[in-house]
Amino acid sequence: MNSIKLIGFDLDDCLFDSTGLSERARIKGIDAMISLGLKIDREKAIKVIGEIVDEFGSNSSKHYNYFIRRLNQMEGNIEYISYNTRYKYIAAAVMAYHQEKVNSIRLYDDVKKCLVRLKNLSIKTAIITDGIPIKQYEKILRLKIDELIGLIIISDEIGIKKPNPELFNYWLKKFGVKGKETIYIGDRIDKDIVPANLNKIHTVYLHRGGKYDLTHVDLKIRGSLKPDYEISNLNELFDIIDDINNKET
Amino acid sequence: MNSIKLIGFDLDDCLFDSTGLSERARIKGIDAMISLGLKIDREKAIKVIGEIVDEFGSNSSKHYNYFIRRLNQMEGNIEYISYNTRYKYIAAAVMAYHQEKVNSIRLYDDVKKCLVRLKNLSIKTAIITDGIPIKQYEKILRLKIDELIGLIIISDEIGIKKPNPELFNYWLKKFGVKGKETIYIGDRIDKDIVPANLNKIHTVYLHRGGKYDLTHVDLKIRGSLKPDYEISNLNELFDIIDDINNKET
Repeated sequence: MNSIKLIGFDLDDCLFDSTGLSERARIKGIDAMISLGLKIDREKAIKVIGEIVDEFGSNSSKHYNYFIRRLNQMEGNIEYISYNTRYKYIAAAVMAYHQEKVNSIRLYDDVKKCLVRLKNLSIKTAIITDGIPIKQYEKILRLKIDELIGLIIISDEIGIKKPNPELFNYWLKKFGVKGKETIYIGDRIDKDIVPANLNKIHTVYLHRGGKYDLTHVDLKIRGSLKPDYEISNLNELFDIIDDINNKET
Repeated sequence: MNSIKLIGFDLDDCLFDSTGLSERARIKGIDAMISLGLKIDREKAIKVIGEIVDEFGSNSSKHYNYFIRRLNQMEGNIEYISYNTRYKYIAAAVMAYHQEKVNSIRLYDDVKKCLVRLKNLSIKTAIITDGIPIKQYEKILRLKIDELIGLIIISDEIGIKKPNPELFNYWLKKFGVKGKETIYIGDRIDKDIVPANLNKIHTVYLHRGGKYDLTHVDLKIRGSLKPDYEISNLNELFDIIDDINNKET
């Protein structure tokens, strides 16, 4: 008798390299402006756009607008960018950004195999994610995992957002399972591991090297902050499932 | 001595088939939802999305959101579309819509040749257009006519919108020319021909068969409504230039 009936995944930086993709896309935008004639040091431009993303949030749709406004305010800027030129640059940057996002999104190598294997084991799957619903679904459709995931839960749908543990409780109720019958896999201690731990879900911290990865974040891991397992490849998940199932029996 | 020094063009439905492209893209969106499982008669869906565009305006970014909301309200709708399914459909529709817009935008066959010929004749060119600046620039960049057009004037830049004749007066002042030294080519009597006529610009009505084309619109053409010339191919523009130059000399 299998104890583990359901496995949940975070989406961004867990199933695909969201941070890296966004960073590469933003740089494509910078390069598009430079090749249209924008006079700026490329490294400096990349630094500025990174600051803007930090300040205005990664979901803002106006990163390049702010970029141009900021250049026009900067000490020692090379030339004032006029209204018309501004929109030409912004349009070119947005086009290049989206092209990269559309063309280069792909699953981490271990994901598809893992989802297929879980399906064959009759273990149900879900994605639990924050973010803008239409954007999250766009990612899921482009990644072509719609058919392999049992349920997609987006915070926006139910008005409960990570790290609220109620979001994970909702997930358990939705499937009619107990925490101990499930595993949740994420890359954020604060938003994934803590609220899942509070629901007595088996927690797996997945190291992907993203911006919130433990190797980059100085967090003292103890108590409810501590994941039950740490892995760096989803292949390792099946040993964990066996481990839990063996302990239960 | 050439009298005609400057020629202005409307952008949408004048240099490319904007209406047709948008319609085709919207249908691609419908088809994407249907192939993901949306249960609706295709012809009915196309009719509904057309109504939504008329009601909410072609620049709304939420056509497919309204589409799903409307389906959920409709008498005899086949099934209620849940939150999750809704966003899956909307994401798929928006993806297909943008793909079509990006891949299928192209100039009318006569445009590039005409712009090159004007350049060789040392006649300056401009685009005068309403619309959202970033969207208008995206079109111009995708159509690759940036290098062939002398100046782009977008209403938003100067806070004067068609059919205000001041927009055309601004254009003349910008180049330091008189109305009689210029030609303006558009596909809208109300928004292009009338305000250009009021500035004594030589006006050319270009028949492209778009939604505002005279052949579709029941307008009595007289007085300031009347264009000086009507053409259906930009090749004919050069006879008009000769005609005006000959009259002047």
